Amino acid sequence: MAFKIGLLGLGTVGTGTAQILQQPTGRHPMVQEIEIYKVGVRSLDKPRSISLPPELLTTDIEAIVTDPAVDIVVELLGGLEPARSLILKAIAHGKHIVTANKAVISRYGDEIFTAANQAGVYVLLEGAVGGGIPVIQPLKQSLGANQIHRITGIVNGTTNYILTQMQTSGGSFNDILGDAQQLGYAEADPTADVDGLDAADKIAILASLAFGGRIKLQDIHCEGIRQVSSADIAYAEKLGFVIKLLALAKRELMAAADTSQEEMLQVRVHPTLVPKAHPLASISGVYNAILVEGEPIGQVMFFGPGAGSGPTASAVVSDIVNIAAVLKTGRDAERLHPLLSCAHQHYCAISPISELVTRFYTRFLTKDHPGVIGSLGTCFGEQSVSLESIVQTGFHGELAEIVVVTHDVREGNFRQALEEIRTLDAVDSIPSILRVL
Amino acid sequence: MAFKIGLLGLGTVGTGTAQILQQPTGRHPMVQEIEIYKVGVRSLDKPRSISLPPELLTTDIEAIVTDPAVDIVVELLGGLEPARSLILKAIAHGKHIVTANKAVISRYGDEIFTAANQAGVYVLLEGAVGGGIPVIQPLKQSLGANQIHRITGIVNGTTNYILTQMQTSGGSFNDILGDAQQLGYAEADPTADVDGLDAADKIAILASLAFGGRIKLQDIHCEGIRQVSSADIAYAEKLGFVIKLLALAKRELMAAADTSQEEMLQVRVHPTLVPKAHPLASISGVYNAILVEGEPIGQVMFFGPGAGSGPTASAVVSDIVNIAAVLKTGRDAERLHPLLSCAHQHYCAISPISELVTRFYTRFLTKDHPGVIGSLGTCFGEQSVSLESIVQTGFHGELAEIVVVTHDVREGNFRQALEEIRTLDAVDSIPSILRVL
Repeated sequence: MAFKIGLLGLGTVGTGTAQILQQPTGRHPMVQEIEIYKVGVRSLDKPRSISLPPELLTTDIEAIVTDPAVDIVVELLGGLEPARSLILKAIAHGKHIVTANKAVISRYGDEIFTAANQAGVYVLLEGAVGGGIPVIQPLKQSLGANQIHRITGIVNGTTNYILTQMQTSGGSFNDILGDAQQLGYAEADPTADVDGLDAADKIAILASLAFGGRIKLQDIHCEGIRQVSSADIAYAEKLGFVIKLLALAKRELMAAADTSQEEMLQVRVHPTLVPKAHPLASISGVYNAILVEGEPIGQVMFFGPGAGSGPTASAVVSDIVNIAAVLKTGRDAERLHPLLSCAHQHYCAISPISELVTRFYTRFLTKDHPGVIGSLGTCFGEQSVSLESIVQTGFHGELAEIVVVTHDVREGNFRQALEEIRTLDAVDSIPSILRVL
Repeated sequence: MAFKIGLLGLGTVGTGTAQILQQPTGRHPMVQEIEIYKVGVRSLDKPRSISLPPELLTTDIEAIVTDPAVDIVVELLGGLEPARSLILKAIAHGKHIVTANKAVISRYGDEIFTAANQAGVYVLLEGAVGGGIPVIQPLKQSLGANQIHRITGIVNGTTNYILTQMQTSGGSFNDILGDAQQLGYAEADPTADVDGLDAADKIAILASLAFGGRIKLQDIHCEGIRQVSSADIAYAEKLGFVIKLLALAKRELMAAADTSQEEMLQVRVHPTLVPKAHPLASISGVYNAILVEGEPIGQVMFFGPGAGSGPTASAVVSDIVNIAAVLKTGRDAERLHPLLSCAHQHYCAISPISELVTRFYTRFLTKDHPGVIGSLGTCFGEQSVSLESIVQTGFHGELAEIVVVTHDVREGNFRQALEEIRTLDAVDSIPSILRVL
């Protein structure tokens, strides 16, 4: 018995997926049991790097998701619509779903998983985070014995490439972004990548799996890498750090209104000073890595290509095979496999960024007056912001450059101190504020 | 409905497993559905760090594996017997098996999986390789879409700790081994670790999963780290390498007797010079990492704690939960889940080490005669061994020390050249022969 898939989209990942299914030799024997039954495309005439029987291709994508012969709908269109509507319609018609669409899942996961549970179908999404790196399935199936404490990931290859290049070449953000666009590592409109939005989608999905609750995307504090300068990268290097765009999710207990404690999540995306000895510090270029910390496992890290046709298609086909394997095992139609399905219903409480306790690195430009360092120190002290170092690093024209590194401080207090510092006569500007891991 | 487990052994990993099951809060909800039904121990009176109802403990381990109430037998005794016999008896009584016993699986996997398939039960073993690192399940379930080309792992924490310490402290193998024994990182009898036998067990298991065939343990070429000296580590460092005990398995096509090509595997364990930029070069201390390469995924790496009570127990409990999840999904008793079971029957053909093509690093001690370097070069040249560098690095007493690095050469030719070199008057000894990744 073959399992029939309806493939929506024949772009980079769709083509990679079809290529794997066309050449099953040397792969898991179950790959042979997957049949490409229909492929939905926008244009039948577009030249393609893959040869498929013409009768498989159709522009009537709606007809695929309602076709009774289709077992699994593989959504590789990307974007929000019509992807969301097609997924929901396919679910309503009893199809299982495989998708690599992090934008749809992070925004409409609630609606999609509720519908899937009602319909008794699976929605798998290994390709949505970390390209080919197995991380969704390990979180669902291999790490379930743990209380997960924290997930820290480099989950956007474009920004990691730009930061790595800035570090090795000393170039500016704008120059390196231009190079990355020419090489195809960055989109013409780089917003989703460089402003951290893509990473926020992905950490929302990872946090949801790790902490067993839904995450509202708008609760995620998100900063991109446009403000990171080559000066900051050079100072970070001297201080023993590299700068990485990290996506983080952490479980913590906060004091509640009464005397009890309430479980909250921190979920955030921002450029971060990472100590050179940290496992994520050496992840360079377009690679991704996800570090999971929990009890009793300690630290485990998953590393690999975070995007691309082949790696993402590897994840997509593995999801297809996993659904086929469960179907083949003779499942009871009433019961979904409890590790492959998504049962949680509640939303996680996310703590505001002002409650974050972290170290900060900050660069100030000030007038070259005596006593400036003392004034900065006083403003921080009044807000209980304890400093690790405060160093005048040099001059920018007539302005003195001062770099401050704090101990662990409450972000709200730190921001309050900065507000006061901005009012000081001697302070010209604060070009960089970065958190330290 | 609770799933009843019979736990064989309450040592380090057994205790860790029971602790997870006793404290299910914050873990996957299915952990609550696992019930410790019986625990088989050698002595009822031994003081233990875990408190279990005394009626659960028994010294009659045979009775556990035949008890009709037990769903899953968790074998954490270690060693070959009685582990093998108990596993086979449990299978014969229809129990599913979870084990962390790499020695039993690498030696008796054939017998055990054949029996399991006949009985229609699962044998899961995530804890047998890489401690808590999810690598078995990703190979079975997340990477099946790929043609795996190569697996390269640091899979023995003891030897990685020793080599890391030798590198950072400059100490000798014997001194660092002594320290490791005092710290509990090495056994009183360190043979299985330092001679590479433990790593051979693990690469046999990984290769079997990655390449879909059984592996005869005696076909694996295995060298340990006793011969690695601090001098070699220092020269490797200068040449841009670190020395790691690697376990490798690689698929290759060999010319067969007729004009066709035959698929063979290389499977080997030996200390190796690893380029500093390689992802495995930065894995230090007792950590493990497994790099998997395939088409179309490229490279993915799994990193984490390679041993220890908590991490290994994390893997064991995840296996238990995975079996429970499949049972709960209402499985057809006739059909095993095709990704969780082990269907391959044939043995992989392993190519002899003499056919390996690799680079070599070799250190010679010779008399301080003119012309020695020329004689070495001639012997290598006669066997078509092409050299990258040949350098006299200094003196050991009256003897000159010469370090040779080759290009890629056939191992058989290289060994033949060494045989001829050993007969040269000027050559005193060849203290180190190491392969280069």
